[in-house]
Amino acid sequence: MRQRLSTADYTAGIMAGDRIMLSQAITVTESRLHADKELAAAILKEILPHSGNALRIGITGVPGVGKSTFIESFGTYLTSLGKRVAVLAVDPSSQKSRGSILGDKTRMEKLAHNPMAYIRPSATGLFLGGIAKSTREIMLLCEAAGYDIILIETVGVGQSETLVKGITDFFLLLMLAGAGDELQGIKKGIMEMADAIAINKADGDNVPTAAIAVSTYQNALHLFPQSDSGFATEVLTCSALEENGMEEIWKLIQAFEKTTKENGFFDQNRQNQNLNWMHDRIRQSLEDRFYEHPDIKNKLKSLEKLVQDGAELPDAAARELLDIFIKNNA
Amino acid sequence: MRQRLSTADYTAGIMAGDRIMLSQAITVTESRLHADKELAAAILKEILPHSGNALRIGITGVPGVGKSTFIESFGTYLTSLGKRVAVLAVDPSSQKSRGSILGDKTRMEKLAHNPMAYIRPSATGLFLGGIAKSTREIMLLCEAAGYDIILIETVGVGQSETLVKGITDFFLLLMLAGAGDELQGIKKGIMEMADAIAINKADGDNVPTAAIAVSTYQNALHLFPQSDSGFATEVLTCSALEENGMEEIWKLIQAFEKTTKENGFFDQNRQNQNLNWMHDRIRQSLEDRFYEHPDIKNKLKSLEKLVQDGAELPDAAARELLDIFIKNNA
Repeated sequence: MRQRLSTADYTAGIMAGDRIMLSQAITVTESRLHADKELAAAILKEILPHSGNALRIGITGVPGVGKSTFIESFGTYLTSLGKRVAVLAVDPSSQKSRGSILGDKTRMEKLAHNPMAYIRPSATGLFLGGIAKSTREIMLLCEAAGYDIILIETVGVGQSETLVKGITDFFLLLMLAGAGDELQGIKKGIMEMADAIAINKADGDNVPTAAIAVSTYQNALHLFPQSDSGFATEVLTCSALEENGMEEIWKLIQAFEKTTKENGFFDQNRQNQNLNWMHDRIRQSLEDRFYEHPDIKNKLKSLEKLVQDGAELPDAAARELLDIFIKNNA
Repeated sequence: MRQRLSTADYTAGIMAGDRIMLSQAITVTESRLHADKELAAAILKEILPHSGNALRIGITGVPGVGKSTFIESFGTYLTSLGKRVAVLAVDPSSQKSRGSILGDKTRMEKLAHNPMAYIRPSATGLFLGGIAKSTREIMLLCEAAGYDIILIETVGVGQSETLVKGITDFFLLLMLAGAGDELQGIKKGIMEMADAIAINKADGDNVPTAAIAVSTYQNALHLFPQSDSGFATEVLTCSALEENGMEEIWKLIQAFEKTTKENGFFDQNRQNQNLNWMHDRIRQSLEDRFYEHPDIKNKLKSLEKLVQDGAELPDAAARELLDIFIKNNA
């Protein structure tokens, strides 16, 4: 049984940059126990005024593109500039590997031992919505603990990248040269979400192919609609392994930050993210109450079958279920 | 005051292909009056087994791309093959022009006088969700009335194209050559939704530019993720004005239909659309009840302001509102 400290203890510890207190507060935030939820809400309320000062960067790409190596290189580069860096992962697939909670740390060994960096392994045993909720709150805790840059890693194959896009300021897509096959795994729409694309593994024999990939993607992206940020998506190369290209990517992110802070997009985007977050939670809670209702559970499967087969109108089925729900809740 | 007929009268009339009865049933479906809603539900229940046999084609593009002229040409071409064609429009902006209910018919004068075609002007005075709901149901009514092909027109600048994509089998994006400026109005992600792109106005001096546009877009699209349909997005040219390219587009759509019926995507997609429709209605109804609640209305604005400014946690605000809602509904 883990011992709970007071809200004031956690808050003071986090604000002092105490990594153990930060880690414990994160564990409380991820917990599903009722007492922990109350405590987490109290801690978050206290640290809220001290959050929001970091630059939040989402990093995505299919498995094998080299995300961990990239974060190791990029994070190390950022700490060399005097930045304090926190690394979080949003990866629903990690539900499967409950045992490997140290997996993220061993993947980024150098950064894990860097006193300027803090790596939080993926939360396990949470559903997608739960992961997103806790990631957002963990980000706020890290900000209150004084981290300047939050790197949030996600696999670009499911829904998690949309969630990460929805809580970050800048979204970086890692890709490999030799377009075609490796794209199959990427979800539609993800390239249009990216603020920048970095062609990774641009080293050794890959250098010429990577250069071709850059111009091919640049040409393609010019055909696509302009981003709301007022910043055109750029494509560049890097080699996380050889630690090349980190400076260029950081300069690009800084240019994005400057442009969007000047044109107002940066603040507007964060305000919208906050509002969307609230409305998402409302929607999610309403749906949870509905779909978890025993009478709805009883009826849903058979109606879904009828609707799917076109034997019942979707509207009629929805009305029938809502009547059941309201009768038993009103 | 409009006179209401019985469910059986409407159903028989629609099944007999009576255009006046069809039009009246559509008006009932679009109505917000309680008695009409009951009647519409009854009619839809009756005709449901006779719906689903048409090919449903969504057509989108920015204003000025020539959607009406295209539908006039393409619809006329289809009727020349012996197909019965119904044309529906999903256009929330038509809310602004309540007076111009005949607008769509005058835009497509030839088709409007074609006995093989049925044009239903945009519903007016409905919010986006209402338009989508009635469009879907109107589509079913037209199918029961024996139309073989349903063309659904939408402007590709808002959210309506996502709705149309969600109720059609094939989604065609109309574009103009001379990429760049004219793309600014298109929403991000819309190109990735398209099953085919037709470069319209490929006539006169535009022919060479259009040919270049085709290869440019083809190259760009090859870089993007493959569609779930197993059918690669194609790009071709047409001139709605000169009635060129209609046969090629129809052949492409037929090839799509053949491929997706063979690989199972066609049926799977419709089943998913039905299910999504039901769950969308549930979600919408739950949210309507929530946001229309007077106690929520009272509290929402002030909480939104706090959340937007980062002074209140989105989660805490959502919880506060849900507590109010549940207390006053349970």
